[in-house]
Amino acid sequence: MKYLLIVAHGSRRTESNDEVRELTQRIKAQSGSEFSDVRCAFLELAEPLIPDGVIDCINNGATEVVVLPYFLSAGRHVVTDIPTEVAKAQQQYPEIKITIIPYLGSIDAMPSLMAQHATHY
Amino acid sequence: MKYLLIVAHGSRRTESNDEVRELTQRIKAQSGSEFSDVRCAFLELAEPLIPDGVIDCINNGATEVVVLPYFLSAGRHVVTDIPTEVAKAQQQYPEIKITIIPYLGSIDAMPSLMAQHATHY
Repeated sequence: MKYLLIVAHGSRRTESNDEVRELTQRIKAQSGSEFSDVRCAFLELAEPLIPDGVIDCINNGATEVVVLPYFLSAGRHVVTDIPTEVAKAQQQYPEIKITIIPYLGSIDAMPSLMAQHATHY
Repeated sequence: MKYLLIVAHGSRRTESNDEVRELTQRIKAQSGSEFSDVRCAFLELAEPLIPDGVIDCINNGATEVVVLPYFLSAGRHVVTDIPTEVAKAQQQYPEIKITIIPYLGSIDAMPSLMAQHATHY
């Protein structure tokens, strides 16, 4: 069972965190049968935090967790903090495959998405 | 002549700002003949700042400027700061049509993009 975990920064604004939660539900609706579930977790300021988010997936039956950083640039959070937090869960469950895939801002299809948005708005 | 201006936060990390500049070039390559040019500007910490970015477009012949906020959530920057900075340029050039379109995180196609990315990585 493969789970997708969207990882966002987290905000003091509840609305921003809820925006991530709603996006997560929409990704789930779009991802067909690829993932048993799509969830979200936060680096700070909102719950669940990343290690808890990963462990929740595992406790719900995940045998593989794919982590997608919802970040626009390869700053410290993407390069250092997220891998550190994910490693805390991996250490507890060494038998589970946990993969951090490239962050949102690096997705090849992003320029095309933005060009389409600007053209058709 | 319609110009597209990608507006990002700006970072102390030069690499993050360069990432935005590269993305801007890739959007330009994808946007066909819709825009005479695609440029970027920053809310803070990098140049050009937003008012200068808009005015540069106008000085280069833009009669219309479309502003796309490269932000993931509808926080203070999107709701207040970007409109305030754009208004500074609009005030100087009241005859130019300047439109702020919805920010990146709100684009309808985003969940599908992320689902595809997670599935095919």
